[in-house]
Formats: sequence, C-alpha cells, structure tokens
Amino acid sequence: MNISDFLSEPVTSKDNPSVKLFRKLMTSKKERMQYKRFALEGSRLVFDALKSNAPVEKIFITLSALRKYGDHIKNIEGINIILISDDLGGKISDTGKTQGIFAECAFIDKTDKLDNLKKNGRYAVLYQLQDPGNAGMIIRTADALGLDGVIFSGSCDIYNPKVIRSTMGSIFRIPVYRDVPVDDVFIAMDNAGISTYAAVVDKNADDIKTVDFCNGGGIIIGNEGNGLPDEIVLKCRERITIKMNGNIDSLNAAMATGIIMWELMKFE
Amino acid sequence: MNISDFLSEPVTSKDNPSVKLFRKLMTSKKERMQYKRFALEGSRLVFDALKSNAPVEKIFITLSALRKYGDHIKNIEGINIILISDDLGGKISDTGKTQGIFAECAFIDKTDKLDNLKKNGRYAVLYQLQDPGNAGMIIRTADALGLDGVIFSGSCDIYNPKVIRSTMGSIFRIPVYRDVPVDDVFIAMDNAGISTYAAVVDKNADDIKTVDFCNGGGIIIGNEGNGLPDEIVLKCRERITIKMNGNIDSLNAAMATGIIMWELMKFE
Repeated sequence: MNISDFLSEPVTSKDNPSVKLFRKLMTSKKERMQYKRFALEGSRLVFDALKSNAPVEKIFITLSALRKYGDHIKNIEGINIILISDDLGGKISDTGKTQGIFAECAFIDKTDKLDNLKKNGRYAVLYQLQDPGNAGMIIRTADALGLDGVIFSGSCDIYNPKVIRSTMGSIFRIPVYRDVPVDDVFIAMDNAGISTYAAVVDKNADDIKTVDFCNGGGIIIGNEGNGLPDEIVLKCRERITIKMNGNIDSLNAAMATGIIMWELMKFE
Repeated sequence: MNISDFLSEPVTSKDNPSVKLFRKLMTSKKERMQYKRFALEGSRLVFDALKSNAPVEKIFITLSALRKYGDHIKNIEGINIILISDDLGGKISDTGKTQGIFAECAFIDKTDKLDNLKKNGRYAVLYQLQDPGNAGMIIRTADALGLDGVIFSGSCDIYNPKVIRSTMGSIFRIPVYRDVPVDDVFIAMDNAGISTYAAVVDKNADDIKTVDFCNGGGIIIGNEGNGLPDEIVLKCRERITIKMNGNIDSLNAAMATGIIMWELMKFE
C-alpha cells in the first residue's frame, strides 16, 4: 500500500467532523450512548477488533503509522480509512505516546441478550465497581479463565477508553453486558438456574475454597472501597469470602475478583 | 502544629541539596544504590512507612500539605522535616497530582538475610520480571495472602517509585529481597528445605491445582513476554502451570502470579 493510494491529503484539523466525533467518543459517555459507538486507540486494540470481526466503522491512521501498519489494513473492506497528519494524531491521542492508529467501533456489548444467559453458566457481576483499570483487568482475566461473561451493573462505563485499553482486546472476545439494572441481573440468573454468590470481607462467610460451584455461579463483586450493600448481599444465595493469612487490605479488587473467578472456574 | 513552628522559610529551589538528592533518588537507580536510600511520595506511603517503623530520614512537605497532614507528623522524632513551597512540591512530584508530601527512606530490603529463609517457607521469586506495576501488584498480593517473602532476581528495581507506589505500602510489611543472583536463590532455597517450582505455559506441566505445597515452596516466575529461560526451569524441582479454558494470552503476569500464590498458600 502506498500513501498515493489515498486520494485525499491527510486531515490536519480537529474540526474535521469525523475527528470531532471521535474525540467526543473518547471523552464523553453521553456521546457514546447517543451514537452507540466507542473509540479505540493503538495497534493492538484496532487489530484485535478487526480480527474478532467487531463492527469497526472508521480507522484513523497517521502518515507514520500508515508506513508501519499499512499492510495490516490494505485488504479490509467496508471500513472508512481516514488519513490524518502525525500532528493531529498526537492531539487526539488519549495516551502519552500514540502509535497513530485509532478506530471508531459500534457497540459490541450483549446487553440485549441478558435474558439468554447460559444454563448453569459462570458469570462475574460487577456492582458499583468504579476503577476503569480494575474493570479492564477483570474482563481480561475472565477471558483468560473462560467465564461465560461479565455483567456491569452500576459500575463504570465499559466503553471508557481506559477500560477498553486495560482489557488488552479481551473486550472483543468475551460477552460483556453493560449498565444492567441489578434487579434484572437477579431475574436473568434465576431464569438460567444460576446461583448467586455475594463476595464479602467477613470471616464468617463461606470460604471460596469450600464452595461447590459445580452448577456454575454468578459471583457478585462490589465497590472497591465499600464492598456490596446489604440489600444486594441479602438477595444472593450465599456469601463467599477469600480467607487468607496476610493483610486483607492489601488485596486489590481486580486481584480478589481474579482469585474468586479462578475458584469458580475450577469446577468447569 | 503551626507553620510558625518551623523556624525556616519554605524551600523554593530545586537546587537545595536535600531536594536535589531526593529528585535523583526518584529517577536514578544508580543514585539509589550509591546512597542506599529511596524516595516516597504521597500521604498513604509516607504514613505507612512511619507506621511500619521504616527508616524514614527526611520528610518534605508543602505548606498546603502541612495544613492537611500536620497532625500526623507533629510528634515524630529523629526525622528531618523540610518545608517546601507548593510550587516546588509540584515540580518534584513523580505523579500528575501531588499531595505535597514526600519522604526519603533508607533501604528496607532483607537481601542480607537471604541465607536465613524460613524452613519450608513460601516465597515468590521474580526472575527478569520487568514491569514496575506488575512487580508492585505482586508484592501487594503476596502481603495480602501471607507469603514469607518476595525475591527479585534480574528483575526491575524494587525502589523504583512506580514499584513502591503499586505496592500500596505492602513493601513495608513483607520481606523483599533485591537484585539476588539467581544461583544464590537456589542455594538459599535448598538450605531452607524449600522445593522450587518453575511457572511455565505448557499444558504438560503439573496443574497447580494438583501440586502438593504442604512443605512450602518457592515459585519462580519469569519475564512478562518470554517466561523463564530453559536453564532456570531445569534447576527447579517441578514445572507448574495454570490450566484454563480461556484465552491464555489474556492472563496478565501479576494476575497469573497472584493465582499461583493463592494455590501455594492454600496449604498453609
């Protein structure tokens, strides 16, 4: 692919309508919800999206990035490829060092299929979890361990660029459900015959090492600082906890969720 | 405590010798090794260090931070407290948003006690692990789970400010060994009767779920991208692996180490 294959000069202005929309998708949940699209940055994420047949609609690429990644995109069809100047690439980047490749992608969550959870499936439910880095790490680990999906309820936006980046592409591989009212989560779990387990910090709760997850399970994880509110815990079949010898305050929310998911998946 | 309790005006210049040394400790491993001191930033880390009786030697505090945290430091003895201007605080900060409190602390690692590992103890050994965020998260999780220590061999510097920050204070609570030649690790493990387990990505290695860690163990974790080199794997008693159903490339090094440490500690 040659730069001359592009009929147009690179876009240089932040006021270009496509660039303008892309920047809004990066920074505003409201705009993402309105357009049902989100923003990707970086070669790994963009190529993971293409490989997973995610509904990528536009690719923005700088002249420098085109020289480097041109071969990866020369044969793709149905996607609008927009050449931008290196300078503009630096300006629209959400990271310190941009690779100069960005994409706009339609929503990929499975929220509309919530009433179709897998019978006796294995799910992580994040209730009021706020940190995008934790959310991304949990999606990534759920993908690694082979969970059936991750459900967000009252938590951060799955399309926040920091969440997307932390998933390292796992967002394109594992079913993720977005902004689900918590009552709907319990109804959907019930319909699919999935028991619910509230993750709590309480030495009297059931030790995750002894819980029998043979019939699957939905583990409910709370906020980083406050955990789960009582009314949510009461709706769950069991209260489960991580028993340990060390300093419990040192366990990060994503790491705790990873360990619980590991125990959940052992019975698969 | 009143600002007037300080006899001197706040330091405003980056050329002040104490400030100059502090900045070098933040950015250069060479300087840290020369002075056997490292830099702390932020209220949580500084107060965790004080609470753990770490050898804090100087505290730098901005005027704004003094109003907020003054009560925490008014009764401490033997520590040189240096008032600095808010402007200078912003300049010496390693993070985007500084809290205006910093400390200089003497080295706290237990490297000189490597030949005294706990009989049948439980240790994580990081060999050529490079990412400071991963290293900090592993130290933090080891502290949570109650391991006997974390040993760094050919890995990143434990006193890198990013490592220190990611440990969230666990660096002050769990024994950490620094820059240990890998041969010394194996000798020390042998002397303490601790079996060594090489963590590998290989479905023919022993499943960590089935390994008997009753007599403790030293788990050896390799580099994020390349894993452990063969010559290290061959020195270990067993090769262990995390069997899973999902996308193995999605498991982050810190998360994988966390799960292996969790299994290691189950037998405690």
